[in-house]
Amino acid sequence: MKLAVAGVGAMGTRFALKLKQAGNDVTVVDGWDERVASLKKDGLQANLDGKEVAVKVPAYGQKEVPHDLHFDAVFFFTKSMQLEQMVKDMLPVFDDDTLAVCLMNGIGHEQTLEKYLPKERVFLGNTMWTAQMTRPDHVLLEDDGSCELANVQPGEPQHSQAQELVKVLADAGLKAHLLDDPQYSVFRKGCVNGTLNTLCTLLECNVEEYGRTTYAHEMVVNIVKEFAAVGATEGITLDVDEAVNHVEACYTVIGAHYPSMYQDLVKNNRRTEIDYINGYVSRHGKEHGLKTPLCDLLTAEVHTKEELQGAK
Amino acid sequence: MKLAVAGVGAMGTRFALKLKQAGNDVTVVDGWDERVASLKKDGLQANLDGKEVAVKVPAYGQKEVPHDLHFDAVFFFTKSMQLEQMVKDMLPVFDDDTLAVCLMNGIGHEQTLEKYLPKERVFLGNTMWTAQMTRPDHVLLEDDGSCELANVQPGEPQHSQAQELVKVLADAGLKAHLLDDPQYSVFRKGCVNGTLNTLCTLLECNVEEYGRTTYAHEMVVNIVKEFAAVGATEGITLDVDEAVNHVEACYTVIGAHYPSMYQDLVKNNRRTEIDYINGYVSRHGKEHGLKTPLCDLLTAEVHTKEELQGAK
Repeated sequence: MKLAVAGVGAMGTRFALKLKQAGNDVTVVDGWDERVASLKKDGLQANLDGKEVAVKVPAYGQKEVPHDLHFDAVFFFTKSMQLEQMVKDMLPVFDDDTLAVCLMNGIGHEQTLEKYLPKERVFLGNTMWTAQMTRPDHVLLEDDGSCELANVQPGEPQHSQAQELVKVLADAGLKAHLLDDPQYSVFRKGCVNGTLNTLCTLLECNVEEYGRTTYAHEMVVNIVKEFAAVGATEGITLDVDEAVNHVEACYTVIGAHYPSMYQDLVKNNRRTEIDYINGYVSRHGKEHGLKTPLCDLLTAEVHTKEELQGAK
Repeated sequence: MKLAVAGVGAMGTRFALKLKQAGNDVTVVDGWDERVASLKKDGLQANLDGKEVAVKVPAYGQKEVPHDLHFDAVFFFTKSMQLEQMVKDMLPVFDDDTLAVCLMNGIGHEQTLEKYLPKERVFLGNTMWTAQMTRPDHVLLEDDGSCELANVQPGEPQHSQAQELVKVLADAGLKAHLLDDPQYSVFRKGCVNGTLNTLCTLLECNVEEYGRTTYAHEMVVNIVKEFAAVGATEGITLDVDEAVNHVEACYTVIGAHYPSMYQDLVKNNRRTEIDYINGYVSRHGKEHGLKTPLCDLLTAEVHTKEELQGAK
């Protein structure tokens, strides 16, 4: 398949690398000059399950993608706040059969994609793979993971196209599954981020360390309840107990992992995606007259930490 | 006046020093061996408004206070969780006319004192002075401040005794005022601690730095509302706007101050008084069927930070 990965930070690199190794024709696009220079010079460099790899692929800066390129599918893997600009910059290479796939952290990204592309061509999901930038030219890829996606708009041909995308990902070893309800899945993954990602960032610990503390369970349950309440207003019925179990399974499965917002803020002094995680629940709660005091406070705390550090 | 200061950490040292310098007969008592040894050897050593001072006073370990001592009043200045043991250890020196004064951070300390002493002899209040241990044998005393107190049980002679205590403190330059309603005042001060003390500890900043951030006001208002709701169940009518102004005045008055829980946890890796601040609101909220999600979360976050650090 002819694929583009738009946004090749930590997670984009995992997907680009695995898809390329599986024989797909992969092009990468990024908005960070230093990263683009390294991609052009040395390709995708990573420690993949303990082994150093370097794989050459065509690489472009976000503003210099040739308009005559064609892709079967574009995988978006930017930071949440950079998605909209990336979509706009990539529009010239979207033909009327190019699929847009978003497996990024954060809730509501399909709404961004649907502003620019027909809903039938938008595919949404999430991933439990981990990834970590060690340097602008190197990514650490360890831990086991999986990903899942579906067409946002029910019907054909998009359902078959989702199956095809899942096959391409599965064939690349990315353990992909077809979803019934992608919004449900994104909300369920949002619970993982809105608890572990946020609290590990505020408390500066990894997933396992957090999981061992006395109040871990109580905090997770109460935050997940807010996600469930806001999800319900959008037709998403989250099973709180199941979602809590899903969150808490991470204590062992990806225990040593420092989540993405920790990496952004604590490690790299960059602004986080909190507005697309707990912040999404806060905003949409307010729109529906629901109180979400925990997500409000956590969003405020993370933004305050960003401000105090002068995060960029 | 013949006075004891029971608990001579940072704030106890400020009061003992000022009361002694004003000509009172002051004895100090502490439970920390290293501190007691330094007090016995070198007295109260501090940087007081930019000047190094050292003042000798009788000093005793908490378990070795001679039972034949007599005091007109005992000022308690322990950490909240150490108050009850200190009260019990000091009981042998309480005659039937010895007054117990508590100006400590935290809510509900009068309930601890009243378990052991007649309510008529309990005097409650708070202080806006700051103080900071720099070493086990040295305290930093800067910033302007004040204190206020009243008799817990209305009536005489305790009202006159409260006036006398205020005069002793005022004569020592501690800017003391008589309160109408000490529980109200403690709750109002609790709002300062439950916002600035807690958030500066979690976010590792000083009061001014916190005050400059975008979400500072919103967080303060929402936390103060929980204090007000729980206060109302105890007959305390907190004016939310006034309490918020009181909190926010600290941004300029004691801007450079790192609050006590920051000093405990971030600087000295010791457990905090959170259970007597936001934790008090959480517990008493639950007892009255009130939801206090912010105080619940903040209490959990601070305890989680303590656990992650292995604070003692």
